[in-house]
Amino acid sequence: MKGDKAFMALALEEARNAQALGEVPVGAVVVHRGQVIASGFNRRESWQDPTAHAELIAVKRAAEVLGSWRLDDCTVFVTLEPCPMCAGMLVNARVPRVVYGARDPKAGAIRSLYAIGEDPRLNHRIEVVEGCLGTACGEILTDFFRSIRQAQKAQRSGEEDPSTCSKDDVL
Amino acid sequence: MKGDKAFMALALEEARNAQALGEVPVGAVVVHRGQVIASGFNRRESWQDPTAHAELIAVKRAAEVLGSWRLDDCTVFVTLEPCPMCAGMLVNARVPRVVYGARDPKAGAIRSLYAIGEDPRLNHRIEVVEGCLGTACGEILTDFFRSIRQAQKAQRSGEEDPSTCSKDDVL
Repeated sequence: MKGDKAFMALALEEARNAQALGEVPVGAVVVHRGQVIASGFNRRESWQDPTAHAELIAVKRAAEVLGSWRLDDCTVFVTLEPCPMCAGMLVNARVPRVVYGARDPKAGAIRSLYAIGEDPRLNHRIEVVEGCLGTACGEILTDFFRSIRQAQKAQRSGEEDPSTCSKDDVL
Repeated sequence: MKGDKAFMALALEEARNAQALGEVPVGAVVVHRGQVIASGFNRRESWQDPTAHAELIAVKRAAEVLGSWRLDDCTVFVTLEPCPMCAGMLVNARVPRVVYGARDPKAGAIRSLYAIGEDPRLNHRIEVVEGCLGTACGEILTDFFRSIRQAQKAQRSGEEDPSTCSKDDVL
């Protein structure tokens, strides 16, 4: 849907908030009847909380807003394919529709490793849309991990090459 | 292990706390190097939070206590087999060992529907022990759902039989 891209752009803004804190850049928004009612971004490191993924934070906030653990009439937009924890959470919250950007081949549980949102054995099924602003959602992650690798390489190079020692190093 | 039963008995106490609030009775404790550092019980209804499962609450609290999202050297004891959300959360938290009581054939994601804790494609594997105080952990759930069904039956029976109307009903 045309409106999906506008909401995913907001989720991307949330991902940039994560990046600004040095967190893996993933963002999410929850839309209820056409209105954004909650948002979140990955805070695992800054909160030291293993549950602090973008969509879990956003859904908890949405449940607070609605006063209900059931997220009827809601769509969750998230920049990265949800992991098993988050896919299970979306089922538990009875989220009717999930739109995500980039696939996560290493831990994705909506299409990549599992299809938890579409498992007929569970008590809820989710309508899934994938690839919404997928390139942008993937690039922000690729850029983040590239910059981390470059920083690590530069650090190692500095450690191995004595010519790069600073004055402080030899004092 | 012998000590497992003592810790599961504490998780069962947590399940009774849930039951006292009218919540589905599931409880959990987190043990770090032989000491209970956190506990929790199902609060989905009382908090109207779709993420408020016993083990997720307990693990969040344990991470706060340890100041780390990695629950190294921890065992999570939970009276019911974790659902996909909670099994994924236990992987995300790098929990080394999980002990649970009763199987959940409808939503269990450790052995019943999925084996998320033992998936070689994910970046962490969990040592799993099942059936610890399994009978007691299952019975508290069976009793809870039986009492709900009986209450519902009595209510329907009362609605259908005008002889059971109270004085207030006819005023």
